Amino acid sequence: MDKMVQKPNYVEELLEILRSSLAADELQDQISDYHESDIADAFEQLTEEERRRLYPLLGPEWIAEIFTYIEDPDEYLKELDLGQAAQVLSYMDSDDAVDVLDELDDTTQEKLVGMMDEESSHDIKMLQSYEDDEVGSLMTTNFIVIHENLTIRQAMRELIRQAGENDNISTVYVIDKNDQFYGAIDLKDLIIAREKDALEDIISTSYPYVTDHEKIDDCIEQIKDYAEDSIPVLTEDKQLIGVITAQDLVEVVDDAMGEDYAKLAGLTAEEDLEETTTESMKKRLPWLVILLFLGLAVSTVVGIFETVVAVLPIVMCFQSLILDMAGNVGTQSLAVTIRVLMDENLTAGEKVGLVFKEMKVGFFNGLFLGIMAFIFIGLYIWLLKGNPVVHAFVISGCVGFSLMAAMVISSLVGTLIPMFFHKIKIDPAVASGPLITTVNDLVAVVIYYGLVWILLIHFLHMV
Amino acid sequence: MDKMVQKPNYVEELLEILRSSLAADELQDQISDYHESDIADAFEQLTEEERRRLYPLLGPEWIAEIFTYIEDPDEYLKELDLGQAAQVLSYMDSDDAVDVLDELDDTTQEKLVGMMDEESSHDIKMLQSYEDDEVGSLMTTNFIVIHENLTIRQAMRELIRQAGENDNISTVYVIDKNDQFYGAIDLKDLIIAREKDALEDIISTSYPYVTDHEKIDDCIEQIKDYAEDSIPVLTEDKQLIGVITAQDLVEVVDDAMGEDYAKLAGLTAEEDLEETTTESMKKRLPWLVILLFLGLAVSTVVGIFETVVAVLPIVMCFQSLILDMAGNVGTQSLAVTIRVLMDENLTAGEKVGLVFKEMKVGFFNGLFLGIMAFIFIGLYIWLLKGNPVVHAFVISGCVGFSLMAAMVISSLVGTLIPMFFHKIKIDPAVASGPLITTVNDLVAVVIYYGLVWILLIHFLHMV
Repeated sequence: MDKMVQKPNYVEELLEILRSSLAADELQDQISDYHESDIADAFEQLTEEERRRLYPLLGPEWIAEIFTYIEDPDEYLKELDLGQAAQVLSYMDSDDAVDVLDELDDTTQEKLVGMMDEESSHDIKMLQSYEDDEVGSLMTTNFIVIHENLTIRQAMRELIRQAGENDNISTVYVIDKNDQFYGAIDLKDLIIAREKDALEDIISTSYPYVTDHEKIDDCIEQIKDYAEDSIPVLTEDKQLIGVITAQDLVEVVDDAMGEDYAKLAGLTAEEDLEETTTESMKKRLPWLVILLFLGLAVSTVVGIFETVVAVLPIVMCFQSLILDMAGNVGTQSLAVTIRVLMDENLTAGEKVGLVFKEMKVGFFNGLFLGIMAFIFIGLYIWLLKGNPVVHAFVISGCVGFSLMAAMVISSLVGTLIPMFFHKIKIDPAVASGPLITTVNDLVAVVIYYGLVWILLIHFLHMV
Repeated sequence: MDKMVQKPNYVEELLEILRSSLAADELQDQISDYHESDIADAFEQLTEEERRRLYPLLGPEWIAEIFTYIEDPDEYLKELDLGQAAQVLSYMDSDDAVDVLDELDDTTQEKLVGMMDEESSHDIKMLQSYEDDEVGSLMTTNFIVIHENLTIRQAMRELIRQAGENDNISTVYVIDKNDQFYGAIDLKDLIIAREKDALEDIISTSYPYVTDHEKIDDCIEQIKDYAEDSIPVLTEDKQLIGVITAQDLVEVVDDAMGEDYAKLAGLTAEEDLEETTTESMKKRLPWLVILLFLGLAVSTVVGIFETVVAVLPIVMCFQSLILDMAGNVGTQSLAVTIRVLMDENLTAGEKVGLVFKEMKVGFFNGLFLGIMAFIFIGLYIWLLKGNPVVHAFVISGCVGFSLMAAMVISSLVGTLIPMFFHKIKIDPAVASGPLITTVNDLVAVVIYYGLVWILLIHFLHMV
């Protein structure tokens, strides 16, 4: 379809404005009409000199907002003196500030945190105290909180007071007189409430929350289910210390899926463009080494059938076909099983159901493909390889049957192995791939060469 | 780590409340303290009879909110009479209502849409007019919009008036006197504005937007970058007709990644538990059939080397090893390349850089694994297979060298093929997998048996 509407290129427009000779207030006024994400894109295209001229015009709060949209803000932070940098960091969401600080060396980090205002440095130290896989490391301390004993009017005034410093205003959190989490108010309800209504009536007291030391992986599905703009994070003793925002969630979901994706492909972690060759090697070698040894095991088993191949070399032509197909079917079952395990808590009955269904799919697909293989490979051996017609179709029959049998067993293996790893709490996406390939290879090789040996050589004495 | 905080089980609590004999208003009051997602979970555990008793107590608006959190609300919609069902649908976000309607038969659908209020049925017909992959099909028509010529006080009053019916209030959209999109106001800015400020000053007029016919895949990364609670959707002539919310985005990101994940595993689409065997077969067979024929091509090439195997059968033991390793390395490069292509727009230089980097990683990993294969396979042939030591290490040398060569070429193929498909606008996740397996198999087979033939048989006359 033709793009009939030409969207304006905000970044180009911004570059023009930023490079113009406009007076300071006119420049600020014009830039303020744009989204910080676009300003960030334009900002990255400026020269260092142009940026240095811009910093004083923007001021620390605006710079902080722009930095939120830049992937590696630490590069630009270095263009500011330490005092300015500390100010910018103070204005950033605490989780974003921590990400930036993590990129700097320890001395600079310490100096900067020391120069920040007390609240910001406290928040940053708190976030840094959590492990990377804990909810606490992901939260932002930027939210609105009020006491439960306020009137609607007082709550509204409190909101206006706090909104200046805090972005996440769509849910107003409520604490009781012991400063423990009490509930949450949807901003919408507060806005449409009448002055004489009781605040209590619009507070959801049984509001969902997560605790700071929970593992992110364990609660991500649950947080997604609530579909809120933010979810509160509590300590063990019910103190409200932060929130997880929907934006954080988009990032986590994106990252988590990317990681699984990478793991399925035999990488130990996701890679990006900037990585060095050595870093990439480290992420890929572990599985390759394991696979090499598993492959050696398969080779040893194939070695048992050396004599079969020696007397009937044509059969080895179809080994790669059967192994590849079994591998593919196993990967399909694996992918389906992993997705199901990730998304839902299966009962034992559902698990058995899934295994049977996979085997059924494997059987019928295998039957179909086995028959196709029987016909086409038979024709190939008969017409192109010039073998007698019966001879040709007995061999292709072995290939077809082995293909079907290997596909059924691969479906079974591709379903059981990830379930087993899931059960013993090992990430099935990591461990399953290589093991399934190996088991399927072994099964396929034994079935195929075993069948050829027994049927063709032992019974039919075809050689 | 021990779970020291026992989180309350809201769903259990709700079931107790819902099944109690509390008076209607007391029941409503207690339920209102809970999140709709938890109410939905409890609701699904009730018997039909219990639910039927509950519907009149909840009323259509609340039912609509609860249905938003249920995966297949159409099942429960059938428990309501048509008039009630139409009312519930009217209160749902238009995109959610469309999802429910899509599950019903055409007659019921038409009847229900006919019974809905004019605004809702208009919105639903509009959403249904878009293709599934267009932004328009994903948007909700539930947002706040004001005219640009209002004062701060008037804008605030308008917000309060519209907030009753519209959930997505964190951004207030602004249109001009021709009803064209003019800009957006961050709710926070409106709340903290003083009455004498000009509304114009807090409107971002160069606000990001998407157009209704844009492909979702084309703009999803861009929407993610803005990290907003909602992004406006405009028509060609700049009419504001809906918004995409962060929650919609979480779903889309999740789905998109799931799809890619499935495609990489050779499924044509993502599967779930409820699917029938036939549906699953249909999703898997296409690739398997293609793979069968590609596999036959590989078999034909292996057939050329039949004579090599006939005279030196031991070499066929290591075929599976080399092919599997080449396949794994190819998949690793593929996974990395697809992720990079999805996330960023690469310049030609960066593409060449990526190709070289992948080859470099392939080479060094191949060198390492090739040397390991040389040593271990040599020992295996010498000690376990009882071949002369020189003989053994000449063969294992061929395996090691072929392994390395195959890994370098697989890295190249695993990078170039997805780039090529991306260039010609075919989804690389779908098309790359099978092609890469086949090309890598062919390359590995030719290198390995070719090397054995030339070196061992032709030059060294080992047989």
